[in-house]
Order: sequence, then structure tokens, then C-alpha cells
Amino acid sequence: MSSARPGRRPGDRRVAVDRPASPYFQHVSPGVVVARPAALEPGDAFARGVARLRRFAFGRPLANSEEAGERLTKVKALAVFSSDNLSSVAYATEAILFTLLAAGTQAFAYATPISILIVSVLGIIVISYRQTIRAYPNGGGSYIVARENLGAGAGLVAAAALMTDYVLTVSVSVAAGVAAITSAFPGVFDDVRVEISAVAILAVMLVNLRGVRESGTIFAIPTYVFVISMLALIGVGMIRTALGDPPQVSGVTGVAVPAETLGILLLMRAFADGCSAITGVEAVSNGVPAFRSPESVNARTTLLVMGVLVGVMFLGTSWLAGIAGALPSSSETVLSELGRAVFGPGLLYYVLQLATMGILILAANTAFADFPRLSSLLARDGYMPSRFAFRGERLAFTTGIVALAGLSILVLAAFGGRVEALIPLYAIGVFTSITLSQAGMVRHWWASRDDGWRRSLTINGVGAIATGIVTVVFAVAKFALGAWLIVIVIPVLVAAMLMIQRRYERRRVQTAVREEVVIGPPTRSQRVIVPVADLTRDVIQALKFARTMSDDVTAVHVTIDPERGAELRARFERQVPGIPFVIIESPYRSLVRPLVRYLEEAAGRAGDDVVVVLLPVYLAPGPVERFLYNDNGRRIRDALLGRPNVLVADVPYRRAA
Amino acid sequence: MSSARPGRRPGDRRVAVDRPASPYFQHVSPGVVVARPAALEPGDAFARGVARLRRFAFGRPLANSEEAGERLTKVKALAVFSSDNLSSVAYATEAILFTLLAAGTQAFAYATPISILIVSVLGIIVISYRQTIRAYPNGGGSYIVARENLGAGAGLVAAAALMTDYVLTVSVSVAAGVAAITSAFPGVFDDVRVEISAVAILAVMLVNLRGVRESGTIFAIPTYVFVISMLALIGVGMIRTALGDPPQVSGVTGVAVPAETLGILLLMRAFADGCSAITGVEAVSNGVPAFRSPESVNARTTLLVMGVLVGVMFLGTSWLAGIAGALPSSSETVLSELGRAVFGPGLLYYVLQLATMGILILAANTAFADFPRLSSLLARDGYMPSRFAFRGERLAFTTGIVALAGLSILVLAAFGGRVEALIPLYAIGVFTSITLSQAGMVRHWWASRDDGWRRSLTINGVGAIATGIVTVVFAVAKFALGAWLIVIVIPVLVAAMLMIQRRYERRRVQTAVREEVVIGPPTRSQRVIVPVADLTRDVIQALKFARTMSDDVTAVHVTIDPERGAELRARFERQVPGIPFVIIESPYRSLVRPLVRYLEEAAGRAGDDVVVVLLPVYLAPGPVERFLYNDNGRRIRDALLGRPNVLVADVPYRRAA
Repeated sequence: MSSARPGRRPGDRRVAVDRPASPYFQHVSPGVVVARPAALEPGDAFARGVARLRRFAFGRPLANSEEAGERLTKVKALAVFSSDNLSSVAYATEAILFTLLAAGTQAFAYATPISILIVSVLGIIVISYRQTIRAYPNGGGSYIVARENLGAGAGLVAAAALMTDYVLTVSVSVAAGVAAITSAFPGVFDDVRVEISAVAILAVMLVNLRGVRESGTIFAIPTYVFVISMLALIGVGMIRTALGDPPQVSGVTGVAVPAETLGILLLMRAFADGCSAITGVEAVSNGVPAFRSPESVNARTTLLVMGVLVGVMFLGTSWLAGIAGALPSSSETVLSELGRAVFGPGLLYYVLQLATMGILILAANTAFADFPRLSSLLARDGYMPSRFAFRGERLAFTTGIVALAGLSILVLAAFGGRVEALIPLYAIGVFTSITLSQAGMVRHWWASRDDGWRRSLTINGVGAIATGIVTVVFAVAKFALGAWLIVIVIPVLVAAMLMIQRRYERRRVQTAVREEVVIGPPTRSQRVIVPVADLTRDVIQALKFARTMSDDVTAVHVTIDPERGAELRARFERQVPGIPFVIIESPYRSLVRPLVRYLEEAAGRAGDDVVVVLLPVYLAPGPVERFLYNDNGRRIRDALLGRPNVLVADVPYRRAA
Repeated sequence: MSSARPGRRPGDRRVAVDRPASPYFQHVSPGVVVARPAALEPGDAFARGVARLRRFAFGRPLANSEEAGERLTKVKALAVFSSDNLSSVAYATEAILFTLLAAGTQAFAYATPISILIVSVLGIIVISYRQTIRAYPNGGGSYIVARENLGAGAGLVAAAALMTDYVLTVSVSVAAGVAAITSAFPGVFDDVRVEISAVAILAVMLVNLRGVRESGTIFAIPTYVFVISMLALIGVGMIRTALGDPPQVSGVTGVAVPAETLGILLLMRAFADGCSAITGVEAVSNGVPAFRSPESVNARTTLLVMGVLVGVMFLGTSWLAGIAGALPSSSETVLSELGRAVFGPGLLYYVLQLATMGILILAANTAFADFPRLSSLLARDGYMPSRFAFRGERLAFTTGIVALAGLSILVLAAFGGRVEALIPLYAIGVFTSITLSQAGMVRHWWASRDDGWRRSLTINGVGAIATGIVTVVFAVAKFALGAWLIVIVIPVLVAAMLMIQRRYERRRVQTAVREEVVIGPPTRSQRVIVPVADLTRDVIQALKFARTMSDDVTAVHVTIDPERGAELRARFERQVPGIPFVIIESPYRSLVRPLVRYLEEAAGRAGDDVVVVLLPVYLAPGPVERFLYNDNGRRIRDALLGRPNVLVADVPYRRAA
């Protein structure tokens, strides 16, 4: 196509400008073209159908420039980044009671004091993270803060700790969400818990593959329904208690646990299990860049709102559990017991259960927002395979999303989908990374000496010390219950990331070109060798290519039967004059190996010349044919790969050519 | 190396002749080299280790010229080609009794008359096949005889029938062999029958992969021990009966079968099941070329000896079973019962059982000799994938041997390793192919009119009619018991073979070059395009290659980030002057697809010129690296494969290069 422009000569308003026409590219300047969406379309009909299906499910491709529109309002951000933290309320109280039950129900009296202690820790962390958000308006995840202030090692430990916890967040949240439903409909879904959980994880995965904006909309509703239901539960419970009609849990069989004496270790374990209420609090500071402008201010506000909501809901639940006599059971969650006791078995109860399931399954979404983002940062720094940094058609980090879904389903299946089995593994990673992050912030304030650095340093210092103590309490109290697994996994992950980084670095060094090198003109010439199985059209085509490339062309034929070889030579010399024909007789019947040896020797004799081996390839029209023909070409190619001065090229033959 | 020859000038006894030196090739004449064994050695150390292990297990490679030494004496040939037929005696009588048992033990009186009928059929077949051997001294398998005389369709039906029966021969023989051992040591191996059978099949497979000569030696001993044991069993049984002390089977619980009335259908089924004694009789005529000279005479003698031996052993066993009151049982074979009754539970009994197992497992070897030979013939004619025609280092048809082992293990596992479940499927294929072969021979004699053609035609005509009737009896009597499976499998196999042949034929026609075509000089020139991800050594190497190949070289870079693209351009234009640098901006982040589209368009613009795409390839040093790097090169190669005038070549980069 020629586009027309105003001409320069009088009376000649337009002149034709020659410019290559293309449905796929826009030519923006000499040597620069921009791919249009059409350039993404696959060539064959089947792949096009697959792409169309994918776009129906996930939406049209988004350009890089469309990213800004994906920012979140505070209301949506609370749903996206806080559902993990908010939803912890659904199982944290039960986790405390489950541990205390070993010392009898009278130990439940400690539940509320422990909860108050946990909320205090939460408060310290929220205040600390508000400092982090201020210092890192572009996203201050633990990995970045620890790496920048404490070094790469600390950064990787924080990253590994977070990654294990993101996987567990998905597993625990979904398992607890499914438990909310099996509580409401006892006996119906008991046998298929793991399967339901897996389907839920896959659903969250698909939503995330569509991209961020949709997640915000989808997730806002259940999050707010849950918050309102929980506040209603606690409010109604308080009013009924004040009116002298406290709600009473009934008809529950407690779960059987081995008896233990009430001691400091048991209380530490109850505290540690309850700290699952704190998980997810760091999500907001990771996600600062996803907020609408002013990002930093909005993120700080969201974090504070979230902290207050969690504190109120968690304390209220623990208090209510004590009043109503809730009892951990294998068939019903504590929150379900409280719902029945407070609301009775009516509509409000079912709304609470459904909202609980909703927010828990959506809580997994926090991890689906953060795990891929963290792994993309790690990939950019060379600590994870580069595909984790690649964003798909919908701007989502496809690899990270799929990997998270796969890992969390594996963990769920391994632990039979039971929340109480997963809780002891949980939260150690979070507290490890929070501690490293706070310690990093202390270093940061010390080095920066910004306005108010003393106050910020004090806040983060208190945070680091508090979370550090909690981490040690965790490791001690939960070690035998499964924490040892995490203690192994985190160093293994760090080692793997260091190994990956070393490999990428090695390649970089090996292939680096010095800046001052300038590549001169060519000094070598080339010889072409064509392996010939018979005198067929595919071979003829390869020979024609070979002649185009060089005057020095040789045809080589491997034969098991010398007579047939001689016949082929006669035919070849008559029909393809001017190209020498070499026969390799192979008395041991191997076709490929002697040919490879011959080509190697030819390359050795060629000195500085380039030897090009042109393989005539008959394109198998379908899978049946691929089975019928030996892939000798591939074997030759693999054997010659990487020989100095040898280049192997396929010349595929197609009927039309 | 230069070799020295007597010189022509006086005083100059030797002159140096320049001839390329090579440890891998012998240069026999200009343009002809012969591969030495060293040319078979793989290049890398690991593969060399594997090859050494393989040769330790299977022996050194054999050259084509070493084949003649692999011929068999009559004594060995009887073991190799007759073990299938001879060993049938171990289960044929039991198969008859098992079917008759449905009408009660009084029906066993029909066993001996049925056996006499079966031996008569055997006699007719043996006499018929002696005619075939005379007419086809180069090997007259049913496939060849039917194809040459009745056409390709009949030949394929015979081939498919034989192939299914070879698979069943291996399954039935090995299952019966294992049953001989579980009878002798009751309860020890009952749970692992299928596993033992699979190991036995794999052992036979390995022996056959070593080649024919060894098989003859290994197999001669158990075959002859079995024949002598059986003749001793029958002889001692006859003498004891004559002396008034007939052997009596005791302590056997009969197997429970649904009761049926004694009618013509039941007798037909008993006859059909007993005809399993005839399977394997065609092996000798397939294997004529493997006999020592005079092949035809030796084969005819061997066939006759085999027929007489089988007749005597089978009739004797059926008679003895009637005298001794043998009863089919799930825990013991009939032959084992007879052995205990005749010899008592001493050494002779165990020798009989071990020899039975030995010959049965070796009987599988007949199929391992014939299936690969038949499939190689089919492959040569284009009805099976060509790899079936390829002989490995030890001159064995590796693919056919491995395929037979795999299929028979599958069949055994599917039927739980039970002989009585496999018997109804068995022998239909054999009789189908024998009938087609005899009918073909009738056509052959009619057409040839050789000496004595009337007599031969009569013999083969009687054979064809007799085996045709037996085949129909089979199909009717055993249809509901599993024969329907074979009735389906054979046409499916024939259809598959026809399809394969059509595909090979299509390729042949598509790529055929007319004899009178002479290829002229080149008329096209070439352009080279190098996709460039960064300015690294692997890219530099590809660019140097490109310059060697053409003056028209373009570098293409796909970028997601236009700024980084511009930086690379600046560096490229400074360090690689003279090569145009094109940037493709990809706002949708896809790297491969826009590049492929660009290359396609470039090829389209090139007209008649050849476009060579040189892909810089960083050779991943290990599997970890292969995981770390996206194989974009392969995706580009696959997408461009078969475009007219486009040639894609890798330029692998190795540190040393």
C-alpha cells in the first residue's frame, strides 16, 4: 500500500510514499515497527480457535499502556488486600480453643487474654507498617526492604518465608472456607472436601488470570457482607448478654485431643496458633503501587482501617466464644456454633456462613495478588526463572498464578484439607519476614535520617523486637507440630534461588561483549553438505538451496547395501551434475552415527570455513506420519549442535513449494 | 596421515599419496568410504558408557557380512522353530477337559476321540506345509504365499491373523509355563503370576535381542528334556497300565464351571480348544532361510519330525488323562497331575515340571523369531513403520522384538495371567492364516503346473478345505467366549496396515523426481535475518556467520520497553556497524509471535530470494538451565517450518567457540 502525502511541487498536491503495507505492524520510524494485536494471532486454525476460547474466558489482550487504568480505590483495595487478614478471624479463635482444649475446657478462660495479647502485637505491626509505606511508596514488601537495608541474603530469607506463607494462606483459607459450608450443611460435602477446595482454588486462579480490576469488583461484595455479618454477630451477642439472655452453644460434641497439663508451653502454642489472625497484614504495604493516587496516603488509611476491623472482630469473637461456651468440634466450626447460638438457625446464620466461605476463598486472592508480584521481583533480580517476570495478555503474571494454585492444591491434598493440620505450619513465614522487614526499616531510618527518623526508628525497632520475640515463640512452641518442615523449606528455597541466580550470572558473564569491541567484516567462506537418502523432491530442494549458498556443495549418502548406493550415484550424477556425491557404506547398519562422524571430519578439514549442513526434511502432514518416519534429522542436529564452525539447518519440503 | 606407495621415478621407491586419515572410515575408492566399527561409538562419555553396557549384555556389533554364520542345524532348528508346537501338548489336553467338564466328568470319554480328530488335522497340515516348503525355499510364510497367489488383501489378513496369534502364543505359553511351576510349588508364587510371567517374557526378549545363534543353543536343552520327559511319562504310564497298575490322580479338587448339557456345540468348543495343540506348526515354513543348506530338505525333515512328536505326545497325554482320571483344577495343571500319578512326587516329577516350564517359556521364542521377521517383511512392503525393517547391532529386528514383548505382557496383565481365559482367543488367527496359505498354494500349483502339480494341488486343496472348516467351527464355537475380540482386531489391523501403506505411498508420489529432470545452476540469492535479544557473544557469533553467508544481513530486536530498545540500538550501531537494526515494539508483550510475523513478511518481500533466519542459541549446559531459559528458538523454528523460501538455522554458542 502507498499512503499519499501533500506534494512539494505546485499543482502536485499529493505524492505517493512507498511504505511496506502490513496488517500486523505499524511502521513508526525507519527501523522501528510496532506490533498490532493482529500480530498476536496464531497461524493455524486450531491454535486460533484455542486463542479465541481463551479470550472469551479471560478477555481481550491488554497493552502495556492500559495498565494505569487497573488502579484500585480504597474501598476495592480493602477487599483485595485485606481479605486475607480480615478472614483470619474465621479460624484464629478456633485455633486457640483447639490448643487449649488439651488442658480441658476450663483452660478456655485464657482465650480472651491471649487474644488481647495478639491484638496488641497486631497494633504494633500496623503502626510499624505505616512507617514502611511512607518510606517505600513504590511498594515496600519485606523482600525489598530486607534486601535494600540488610543485604541480599536477608532479602531472600524474607522472600522464601513469604512464599511458603502465601502457599499456606491459600491452603488454610480455602480449607476453612469449605469447613464453613460443611458446618452449615453437615454430612453433605464431607467426603469431597479436598476436591471442593481444589475447584475453589482453580476458580480463584482463573479470576486472577483475567487481571486485577475484575478481582476488585468481584471481591468487594463478600468482603463487606462478611464484615457486616461479623459486626452484627458480635453486636447482637453483646446486646443479648447485656439483656441477661446470653447466647448458648448447644448440641456440639467436642473433638477428642490428647490431654496435657496447662503450662507455659501450651499457652505459647495457643498464642502462636492465634497469631494466624495477623497473617496477611503485610499485603497492603506490598501493594502500594496498585492504589489510586495518592498511593501512599490511601494505603496507610486502608491499613489502619483493616487493623481496627480485625482487632474488633477477633476480640469480639474470642469474648463471644467464652460467653457462649463454644467447643472445637470435628463437624462444625466455632464461628458456625456462635452463629447458630446468636442468630438461631435462620437466614442470618446462613448469610454468615456463606459470607465466611466467600471471604475465606477470596482471602486466597490476596496471596494470588502477592505471590506472583513477589516472584516477578525475584525473577527480575535473577533469583527465579525469568518466565515468572513475564506478563501475559491480561497483564497478569501467569506463571506465578498457576504455580501458586498448583502448590497450594498439593499442600491441601497432602494434609487432607484439614485446617487444624495446616495451622501449625502457618504464620512462621509471615513473622520471619515481618521481623526482617522491621529490622530493615530500623537500618533504613538510621541511614536516611529523614524528618522524624528518630520516631520512626523507635516504632520500627519496637516492631522488630516484638515480632522477633513472637517468631522465636513460634519456632519453639510449634517445632514438633510441623514447624520443622518450614524450618527446612525456607533454607532450601533460599539455596535454590541462589543457585538459579548463579546460573543466570554465569551465562551473563560467559556471553558478555565488551563495550569497546567493534565487529569487523567477514573473513570466512562456507561449504555446504547435504545428506541425501534418495533422489526425491525434498532432497532436490535442499540441493538447490545449497547451490544458492555456496559453490562448494557436497552430497553424502549412507547406505547399508553398496549396490543400491551405486545405483543412486549413477542416477544422481546424471540428474544433478556438478555436485560431488560421497557414499558412506555402513556394514553395521547404523545410519546416523557414521554420517555424524563424516560431517565432523569434514568440518575438521574445513579449517576456518563455515560448514553448513542442510538437512532435507519431509514435513510429516500429521501425527501418524510422525510415527512412521524416523527423526534422523533431529538426531543429526543434536549430535552436531555446538561444534565450532558447523551450522545445521533444516530445509523443510512442502507440497506447494 | 599419508600412506606411501612405490614411486614411478628411478631411485624414488615410494611417494606420499595424500589421502584423508580417519579412525572412523576406510576410503575404498574416490567418493566411497566404509564406516569402521569406531564410527558407531557415541560422542559423549555417558552415551559411550551406555553403549559399553549394552554390548556387555548383547555382544559386539555384527556386520552384515556375518549373517551367514547364524544358520541353524536341524537339531537346533527343531528347538527354535518347534518349541511352540511341541509345548502346546502341555495345555491342549487340559483345554479339552476344561470345556468338557461343563457336562460332567463322564463327558471326558470324548477327549480321546477329539484328540484323534485334532491329530488328523495336524497330519493334513504337516503334509500340506511340506508342499509349501518345496515351492517357497526362501521362506513361505502365510503372508507371502497368500499375497503372491491371492492378492495383497488376503496377504494382509493372513499377516494380521498371524500377528495376533504370535502375541497370544507368547502370552499363553508363558502363562502355562508359570502354571507348571505354581503346580509344583503350590501357594508359593500364586500372587505374583503376572509379574513372574512378565519377567520371563523380558528374559526371552533379551535373549532374542542378542541374535539367533545363541537362542538355538540355549533352547535346545529344555526342548529335548521336555520331549524325553513326556515320552517317559507316556511310556511308564502305558507299562503300568499294561501291568495292571494304572496310575491314578488323587487329592485334586475340580474347578467349578457352570453346568451345560453335552451337545454338538460343547463338543465343537472342546475340539476348538484342543486345536491349540496345532499352533506353531507353520513356524518351520516361515523359517526356511534360517536352516543350513540344503534349506528346503532340512526344513521338510524337521517339520515331519515335529508333527510325529506332537501327535504321539498329544494323543498319549489325552489317553493317559482318561486312564488316570485327571481333573482340571485351579491349583494344578493336568500335566502335573499326570506326572504325580505316574512318577510319584519325586525327582522325575520335578524334572517334568521344570522342563514343561522351560519349553513353554522357550515356546514364546518361536513367536520372537517369527513376529519380528513377519513385521520386517510387512515394513519392507510399506505396511508397517519402516523401523520394523531395521536390524540392530546384533542383526536382530529390535523394534519387532520389543513390540512383541510389550504387547504380550499387556495381554497377560489384561487377562490376569490365566491360561483358560486366553485359550478361547487363541488359534483362530493361526487357522485363518493356514487356510489362506493353503488356498494360496492351490492357486500356485494351478498357475505353475510344475512337476507333480496335480498331486500337490490335491494335498493343499484338502488342507485348505480341512482348515477352512476348522476355522468356521472356531468362529462359531468360540465367538461368545472371546473370539469376537479377534474378529474385531484382525480387520482393525488390516485397516491400519492399509492406512500406513497409503501414507508411505503418498509421500513417495509427492516427492518423486522424474528420471529425465536435470537440476540446473542456482538462480537465487539469499538474505539473512538474525533475531537479536541483546548484544551478547552468542548474538555476535550468529552475526558473524550471517555476514559470511550474505551481504544482505538484518538484525531484528523485539522489545516490550521502547527505551531499552533504543539503548540497544545505540550500542548495536556503534559495535556492529553496517548491519541494519530493526526494532519491533510489542505493546502486548508477546515476543515470539510478532517476530514470526515480521520474518514471514520479510520472506514475502524477498520474492525469489532465499531468506535464512539465523537463531543465536545459548547451549544450556544442563537440565536446570534448560528450565531457566524459554525455548523461544524452538517456537520460532516451528512457526516458520515449511514456509516457502525460508530456512531456519540455529547458531549454537559454546564457551570454547
